Amino acid sequence: MAEPAGTRLAEVADLDQDRVARRGYPEAVYCAGKTPEQLRLIAAAVRDLAQVTLFTRADDDHAAAIRDALPEARWDADAGLLAWPPVPPEPTGGLVVVVAAGTSDLRVAREAMLTASYLGRPCELVVDVGVAGLHRILGHIELLRRARVVVVVAGMDGALPSVVAGLIAAPVVAVPTSVGYGAAFEGLAALLAMLNACAPGVAVVNIDNGYGAGHLAAQISAPFQPS
Amino acid sequence: MAEPAGTRLAEVADLDQDRVARRGYPEAVYCAGKTPEQLRLIAAAVRDLAQVTLFTRADDDHAAAIRDALPEARWDADAGLLAWPPVPPEPTGGLVVVVAAGTSDLRVAREAMLTASYLGRPCELVVDVGVAGLHRILGHIELLRRARVVVVVAGMDGALPSVVAGLIAAPVVAVPTSVGYGAAFEGLAALLAMLNACAPGVAVVNIDNGYGAGHLAAQISAPFQPS
Amino acid sequence: MAEPAGTRLAEVADLDQDRVARRGYPEAVYCAGKTPEQLRLIAAAVRDLAQVTLFTRADDDHAAAIRDALPEARWDADAGLLAWPPVPPEPTGGLVVVVAAGTSDLRVAREAMLTASYLGRPCELVVDVGVAGLHRILGHIELLRRARVVVVVAGMDGALPSVVAGLIAAPVVAVPTSVGYGAAFEGLAALLAMLNACAPGVAVVNIDNGYGAGHLAAQISAPFQPS
Amino acid sequence: MAEPAGTRLAEVADLDQDRVARRGYPEAVYCAGKTPEQLRLIAAAVRDLAQVTLFTRADDDHAAAIRDALPEARWDADAGLLAWPPVPPEPTGGLVVVVAAGTSDLRVAREAMLTASYLGRPCELVVDVGVAGLHRILGHIELLRRARVVVVVAGMDGALPSVVAGLIAAPVVAVPTSVGYGAAFEGLAALLAMLNACAPGVAVVNIDNGYGAGHLAAQISAPFQPS
Amino acid sequence: MAEPAGTRLAEVADLDQDRVARRGYPEAVYCAGKTPEQLRLIAAAVRDLAQVTLFTRADDDHAAAIRDALPEARWDADAGLLAWPPVPPEPTGGLVVVVAAGTSDLRVAREAMLTASYLGRPCELVVDVGVAGLHRILGHIELLRRARVVVVVAGMDGALPSVVAGLIAAPVVAVPTSVGYGAAFEGLAALLAMLNACAPGVAVVNIDNGYGAGHLAAQISAPFQPS
Amino acid sequence: MAEPAGTRLAEVADLDQDRVARRGYPEAVYCAGKTPEQLRLIAAAVRDLAQVTLFTRADDDHAAAIRDALPEARWDADAGLLAWPPVPPEPTGGLVVVVAAGTSDLRVAREAMLTASYLGRPCELVVDVGVAGLHRILGHIELLRRARVVVVVAGMDGALPSVVAGLIAAPVVAVPTSVGYGAAFEGLAALLAMLNACAPGVAVVNIDNGYGAGHLAAQISAPFQPS
Amino acid sequence: MAEPAGTRLAEVADLDQDRVARRGYPEAVYCAGKTPEQLRLIAAAVRDLAQVTLFTRADDDHAAAIRDALPEARWDADAGLLAWPPVPPEPTGGLVVVVAAGTSDLRVAREAMLTASYLGRPCELVVDVGVAGLHRILGHIELLRRARVVVVVAGMDGALPSVVAGLIAAPVVAVPTSVGYGAAFEGLAALLAMLNACAPGVAVVNIDNGYGAGHLAAQISAPFQPS
Amino acid sequence: MAEPAGTRLAEVADLDQDRVARRGYPEAVYCAGKTPEQLRLIAAAVRDLAQVTLFTRADDDHAAAIRDALPEARWDADAGLLAWPPVPPEPTGGLVVVVAAGTSDLRVAREAMLTASYLGRPCELVVDVGVAGLHRILGHIELLRRARVVVVVAGMDGALPSVVAGLIAAPVVAVPTSVGYGAAFEGLAALLAMLNACAPGVAVVNIDNGYGAGHLAAQISAPFQPS
Repeated sequence: MAEPAGTRLAEVADLDQDRVARRGYPEAVYCAGKTPEQLRLIAAAVRDLAQVTLFTRADDDHAAAIRDALPEARWDADAGLLAWPPVPPEPTGGLVVVVAAGTSDLRVAREAMLTASYLGRPCELVVDVGVAGLHRILGHIELLRRARVVVVVAGMDGALPSVVAGLIAAPVVAVPTSVGYGAAFEGLAALLAMLNACAPGVAVVNIDNGYGAGHLAAQISAPFQPS
Repeated sequence: MAEPAGTRLAEVADLDQDRVARRGYPEAVYCAGKTPEQLRLIAAAVRDLAQVTLFTRADDDHAAAIRDALPEARWDADAGLLAWPPVPPEPTGGLVVVVAAGTSDLRVAREAMLTASYLGRPCELVVDVGVAGLHRILGHIELLRRARVVVVVAGMDGALPSVVAGLIAAPVVAVPTSVGYGAAFEGLAALLAMLNACAPGVAVVNIDNGYGAGHLAAQISAPFQPS
Repeated sequence: MAEPAGTRLAEVADLDQDRVARRGYPEAVYCAGKTPEQLRLIAAAVRDLAQVTLFTRADDDHAAAIRDALPEARWDADAGLLAWPPVPPEPTGGLVVVVAAGTSDLRVAREAMLTASYLGRPCELVVDVGVAGLHRILGHIELLRRARVVVVVAGMDGALPSVVAGLIAAPVVAVPTSVGYGAAFEGLAALLAMLNACAPGVAVVNIDNGYGAGHLAAQISAPFQPS
Repeated sequence: MAEPAGTRLAEVADLDQDRVARRGYPEAVYCAGKTPEQLRLIAAAVRDLAQVTLFTRADDDHAAAIRDALPEARWDADAGLLAWPPVPPEPTGGLVVVVAAGTSDLRVAREAMLTASYLGRPCELVVDVGVAGLHRILGHIELLRRARVVVVVAGMDGALPSVVAGLIAAPVVAVPTSVGYGAAFEGLAALLAMLNACAPGVAVVNIDNGYGAGHLAAQISAPFQPS
Repeated sequence: MAEPAGTRLAEVADLDQDRVARRGYPEAVYCAGKTPEQLRLIAAAVRDLAQVTLFTRADDDHAAAIRDALPEARWDADAGLLAWPPVPPEPTGGLVVVVAAGTSDLRVAREAMLTASYLGRPCELVVDVGVAGLHRILGHIELLRRARVVVVVAGMDGALPSVVAGLIAAPVVAVPTSVGYGAAFEGLAALLAMLNACAPGVAVVNIDNGYGAGHLAAQISAPFQPS
Repeated sequence: MAEPAGTRLAEVADLDQDRVARRGYPEAVYCAGKTPEQLRLIAAAVRDLAQVTLFTRADDDHAAAIRDALPEARWDADAGLLAWPPVPPEPTGGLVVVVAAGTSDLRVAREAMLTASYLGRPCELVVDVGVAGLHRILGHIELLRRARVVVVVAGMDGALPSVVAGLIAAPVVAVPTSVGYGAAFEGLAALLAMLNACAPGVAVVNIDNGYGAGHLAAQISAPFQPS
Repeated sequence: MAEPAGTRLAEVADLDQDRVARRGYPEAVYCAGKTPEQLRLIAAAVRDLAQVTLFTRADDDHAAAIRDALPEARWDADAGLLAWPPVPPEPTGGLVVVVAAGTSDLRVAREAMLTASYLGRPCELVVDVGVAGLHRILGHIELLRRARVVVVVAGMDGALPSVVAGLIAAPVVAVPTSVGYGAAFEGLAALLAMLNACAPGVAVVNIDNGYGAGHLAAQISAPFQPS
Repeated sequence: MAEPAGTRLAEVADLDQDRVARRGYPEAVYCAGKTPEQLRLIAAAVRDLAQVTLFTRADDDHAAAIRDALPEARWDADAGLLAWPPVPPEPTGGLVVVVAAGTSDLRVAREAMLTASYLGRPCELVVDVGVAGLHRILGHIELLRRARVVVVVAGMDGALPSVVAGLIAAPVVAVPTSVGYGAAFEGLAALLAMLNACAPGVAVVNIDNGYGAGHLAAQISAPFQPS
C-alpha cells in the first residue's frame, strides 16, 4: 500500500502479449502520458517478444528512451511513431491508398500509412488534393479505384471523404484532423462532417488518429479466408 | 403598469418604416413566436404602406391571420413565406442562382429564392446536386458561372459550398440546413463545415435561414452605383 | 423564377442512376424531410430502373406513398425501411454479423442487417449482449470469429465495440444509438466512447445510422477482386 | 511505401495553379501546421508563377523561410501575412471598408484589409468603434454608406455587425474574433451573435478569419460584368 | 418507506414562510414540473398566509388548480403568471423600465414587469426596439435615463443590452430569450452575447427568466436604507 | 436472414438470470425504447424466476403490457416503476435517506427510494429542502447523520449535495434532475455542479437516474461481510 | 490603404471620453490583446483627461508600458489592474461586500473590490467561506445584511451565490471563476449553476470578470437620485 | 478597503478545523491556483493542528513552500500530493481496490490510493487492465470480489467501470481521466460513458479527481456503526 511509484514493469503495464494470437495484430504502445522511464521498461520487455511493435504519439524524449532499449527501432519524427523491428513485413492483401487533403494533414497521413505498412499491407500516398480544386482528386481516380480501402485524412470542412466515397466502390476510412482554427474546434468540424457524409461507405475514426485508421485499413484489406 | 397584454399595434410592435429609405430594402416580419392576433395588427398596418413586405416563418394559423388583412398576399406554404403585394418587382441586378443539395433542402432553398425575387433580382433554382454524385453539380457549371452570387443550401456534411466556391469567381452564400439526424445536431455539423470551407469566398448565414440568404444575395447582386 | 413548388421529378430530385456503374451499389432514398408527394414521384421513377433500391427513415405516410408506385416493395416498419424489389439478392462475400447491445437497439440493428442483406451479403443477428453481463457476448465468440466484419449497435456507454474489437481479427463497424437519457445526450456519449475505443479496429458511423453501417459492412465484406 | 518525409514539392503540395483561370483569384498558402521546410519549397515554386500570392497565418519562422525564396515579399507581422509581389495591384471595383470594434481586433482587421487590397480593391480602415459608445460608429456613417461592402471585425458580444447592417444598404461581412475571455469561448459567443444578427445582410466567416473576409469582400465588390 | 405519492402538503412541499422576514420578499411557486394536485395543496396553504405570492411558469391546468383554492387570483396567460392577492401593492422605490427587443420577446418582458410590480415597484414597458433600427431605442432615451434599473429582454443576437448599457448610468438586467432558431440554440447565443457585453453594467439572468429579472430589478430599485 | 422482427424472447432479449448469483442484485428491465410486445415477452419470462425484478422508465402502455403477465406487480406511476413481487423484502443494512431539493424533484426521488427499498434497505424521504432556505435542510440534520448513505436529488443549480456532504460523515449519492429551463440545459447545469462539488464525498449518477442512485445506495449501505 | 500598423493613437483607439458625461462612470482600458506600444499611446492620452481610469487584465509588460506614461499609477499585480490617479475617490453610496468562496478566487475578488472602490463605493472583503463548511459564511451574516449589494466570487460548483442570496434582501452579483479542473470546464460549471440559482436575486457576469462585477455593484449601490 | 494582497492567514484562508468533528475526515488543501506564499501560511497553520492533512494538485513550487513549514511531509510528485504527518494511520474498514485501465492513468490512480490510505483504509492497486484485452481484468476477479469498494480509473472510452460493475457486488467509484486526444475532449468522453454505464452501481466523480475518488471510497468502506 502507498509505496513509491513503480519501477518494475508489473507496476506500470501488463503487455497484451496474447493479442497476436487472439486478434492477428500486435499491441501498440501509446506513449502520450507515459514517462520515459515507463517506456524504457516497456521497450525492454518488447525486445523479448518476436513480433512487430509500434510506439505511437511519441515525442523526442519518448523516442530516446525507447531507443535505449531498442536502438535499431525506426523513428519517424513527423508521424511521432517508432517501429520495431525497423523493416516492415512483406506486403500481402489489398492495396491501401492514403489521401491527405492538405500539406498540414501529412503527419497524420504518414502515421496511417506507416501503420498499415507495418501491419503488412501495400500502401500508396497522395498529397494536397482538397476539394477547393476538384481536378486534383479527380486526377487520381484510377489509383483510388485500384484500392481495397482508401484512407482520407482531412481537417477544416472535412469534405473530401464524401467526395471520394462517392467515386469508388471500396470503403473509405475518414480521419478528421485538428488542422484549422476558430470554428474548426480542434477537428470537431471535420469530425462531424465526416460522420454526416452524404455518401455512404465512410468509416470514421478519432481526430488525428492516423494509427487507428492505418490499423482499420489493414484489417479491411487483409487477405481474409472465410472459415 | 401591469395591464392586459396589448391589443393595439403600438403595444406589440414598432414597424421600421424608415428601413427602405435607410437601407433600400423593406422590413420583413418574423412570424415565429408571434400570436395570430399580433400578426393581424401588423398586417393591417402593412396594408397602409406602399412597399414590398415579406412575412417569414409563418405557419398556417399565421397565414390565415395575415390574409384576413391582406387577402391577396401570396402564400407559399412550403417556404412558410407570405409576400405582399403578390407579384415580385421587375428584376434588376445580377443573376442569383440557388442550389439545393438534396430534395429535403428544398423548403429553405425556396425561401431564399422567393426572398431574392421579391427584393428584385432574377433567380434560378437547381435541385438535388449533392457531392455524393459530383457529376450532378458539374453538369450545371455554366449556369453557376453566369451568376453574380450563388446561394448553396445543404445539410448533413455541408460539403457542397466548398466544392461550388472552388469552381467559380462569384461569392457563395452558404445556408446550412437542419436536414439529417444524430451527429448532424440539427444543422450544427453543416454550419461548422461551411465556416471552415477550404475554398475562400463562402459567406455563411444561420441554419435554415433561407430568408437571410436571399436578402444577402439580393444585396450582393444589386445594381450598385458607387457614389 | 418563383413558381409553385415542383410537381415533376426534375423539380425535386436528380436520381443518381449512374451510381451502380460508378460505385457498384445503388442509391438509397432518404425519406425524412421529404413529402409523400415527392416520394411518390421518386418511387415511380425507381420502378423504371432495374436495380435494388432502399428507402430509409420512412414513416407510415412515406411508406404508403411509396407503395402506391411500388406495391410489392417490402416494408419493415421497425427499421423504417422499404426495399424494392422485395427479395434480397443471392448472398456473396464474407459473413456480416450484426450485434445489438440491448433490446432497445434492435431497430437500428435491423436496419443495418436488412441493408447488408439487400446489398448482397450473408448476415446473422445477435441480440441483448451488453457488457453488464460479459458472459453473454463471450458465448457468441465463435460466430463473431467467423465474420468478415461485425456491426456492433449500442447506446448508453457505448462500451461494447471496444470489447468486441478486442476479441477478434475482423474490423468492427460501431453504431451509436440514441438509446438512453440525460447525459447520454441522444447518443453523443456512445458516439464519443466509440471514437475513443481503446481497441483499434473500430469504424464509427453516425448515431442511429443502421443504413450506413450495413452499407459499409457490405463494402468491407465484398468479394473484392484486386485489379 | 513508407519512405522518409517528402523533401520535394510533389511530396508535400500540389499547387492549384489553375485557380486564377478558374476563379479569377490566386491560391493562398495557409502556413499554420506547415514546417518552414515545406514553405521554402512552396515559396520557391511560387516564384516561378506570375501571380499575386498570399501566405497567411505565418509566424516568424515561417516568414523567414518564405523570404529565403522570396526576399522581396512584404511581411506584415501584425497580420501574420506575407504578400508577393510586395506591391498590391491597382485598385478596381467598389470600396471595401473594414471596421474593427476594438483595438484588440486590429490584427484580424489588418489581415482582411491587406487581403482585399492585394486582390485589387480600394480599402479604408476604421478603428475602435464598438457599440458601448454608439456615437463612434455613427460618426462614420457617411464612409460606411459609400462602401460596396463593409467588413466588421468584433469579438466579445459580436454586436457591431447587427448595428452596422441596420444602417446601410450594402452587405456586411462579419468576422468574429477570439478577443475576450471566459464565456467568450474563444470567439464562439461573437460567432453565434453574428449568425443570429437581427438585421439581415450579414455574411459570417470563421473566427479570426481576416483572410476569408477580405477575399469575400473582394469578390462582392468586384467589377462584375454579367455574361 | 415506499408509500403512495404524497397527498398532504408536508409530503410535497415545505413552504419557506420565513422568507419575507429573512429577505423582505415572499417566496414564489415554480409550477413547471408540479402536478395540478400538488399546486392545489400549495395554493390552499398560501391562502392562509397574509403575503403577496406569485405562481410562475403556470400552464392552463396549473392555473385552474390554483384558482380552485384562490379564485380571485390574477391570471396572466401570456406571462404564465398568477398573482395573489390580485392587486399589486402601492409602488415605492425607483422606476423599473422593461424593454422588449422584439414582439416575440413580449411574454418574458411581461413576466418581468408583473413581477416587479407585485414586489412593489413602479414600472414602464417599451416594445420592439431592436438594434436593427437604432432610431427606435434612441427615441426612448429620456425614459431610460429616468430609470433606477432597466430590464432588457432580447433573443437572437442579444445585442440590445450592450447598446442600452452604453447609454445610461443605471444598471441593466439582461434577459436572453429563446426567440430565434438554428444557431440561436434556444437562447444560448443571446445568453453568451450578454455575458460578453462590451459595455459594463450588465447583469445577466437565465434564458427566458422574466421572473428572476423582475425580482432582481425590484431589489436594485428598492428604497434601501443603509443601516 | 432478414425475417420479420422477433416475436420470441430469444429474438429480443437475453435475460441476465445469472446476475443475482454474480452480483447479489437482480437485473432490472429498462422499458424506454422497448415495445409493449417486447415487454410482455420479458414479463412472462420474469414470472418463472424467483427473484425481485424492477421495470424502470415505464409509461402507461408499458405498465399495462407488463401487468398482463404479472397482474399483481406494483405500479408506481409517479416513479414510472413496476416491482414484482409487489412487497419489498424485509430491510437489512444501513439507513438510506433520500432528499429531494424541490417538489418537482419528487418523481426521481421516489424512483430512488423505491429501488433501494426493493433491494432490501430501510429508507426515509425528505422533501423540498433546497438551499434557498437553508433552515429547511438544517432542520433535518439529525436524520441525515443517522444515514449510512444520503441520496440527494436536485435540479437547477445542483447546490444541495455540496451543502449536505459538508455536514455529514456518510457518502452522498447526487442525482441531477432535468428540472429547470434555459441554461439548466435539461440537467446539465446540475450535473456539472455536482461533479465539481466543493465538499468531497459526492458520488454522481446520470441525470434523472433515480434507479441508479437507489441501486448504488443499496450497495453502499449493504450489510457487507469482508471475506 | 495597406500601410504599416498604426503608431498614432487615432490608428489604434478612439477613447470614449464622453462616457463620464453620458454614463457617470469613466471608460476602462482592456489590456489583453493590446501591445505595450498601443497601451503607451493610450496611457499618454489618459494623462490629459481629468478622470479616474482603470486598466484591466494587464500583465507585467502592459503595466510597465502604462507606467512609462503614468508613473504614479497604482499597480495591483494580483488583480492585474492599474488605477490612475492612484488614490480612490471618497466613498459614497451603499456598502459593497465582496465574498470569495476560496483562496484561489482571491484574484478575481480583488479586481471586483478595487473596481468598486475606484468608482467611489465603500467596500469590505470576506475570504474562504465556501459551502463545504456552512458555518463560515453564516458567521458573516451581519456584515452581509448591512450591504447594499454583495458580490460573490466562486468557482467549482458555484453554489455560494444561491446560499447567500437566500439569506439577505440585497441583490447578489455572482462571478463564476475558472478555478477547478475537468468538468469545471474553465468556469462553465460555476457559470451555469449561478444562472440557475434556486434563490432569486442573483445577477451573473462573465467568468473571472471581477471588473464587471465591481462596476455593476458600484452602479447598484450608487447614491441614486430619481429625476 | 483596497489594501495590498493579504500576507496573514486570515486574509487568504479560513481553515475548516471543525471538519473532523463534523464529518470525521480532515480538510484537504487544494493547491492549484494558490501562490506558494499562501500555501506557506496555510502549512504553518496546519502544523499546529493534530490531524492528517493532504495537499492536493501541488506542483514543485507548491511542494517546496509547504515543506518549508512541514519538512517531514511526504511528497508524491507523481500524484501531486503531500501528506502530513508522513505515515498513514493504521488501516481499518473494508478493502479499497484501485484499478487503473492504462499506464497513463497511474497518476490519478495513485492519488486515489494514497488518499484512501491516509484516510485510514487498506488498499490494493491493479494496473493496465483495459477492456481491449478482457483476460487482464478477469484475471483479478478474486481480488475485486474481496473489495468493499473498487475505484476504477480510465480515460479514452471509459468502458472499464461498466465491465467491473457487472462482475461484482460492491459499488464502483469511476474516475474518468483526461488521457486520450481528439474526441476524448480532455476526459469528457470517458465521463459521459461512465455516467451512462449500462451496469448499475457506478458512482462517478470529476475528471482526474483521484482525491475525490479516494475520499469517497474511504467513506464507503468505513467501519460504520449505525446509531
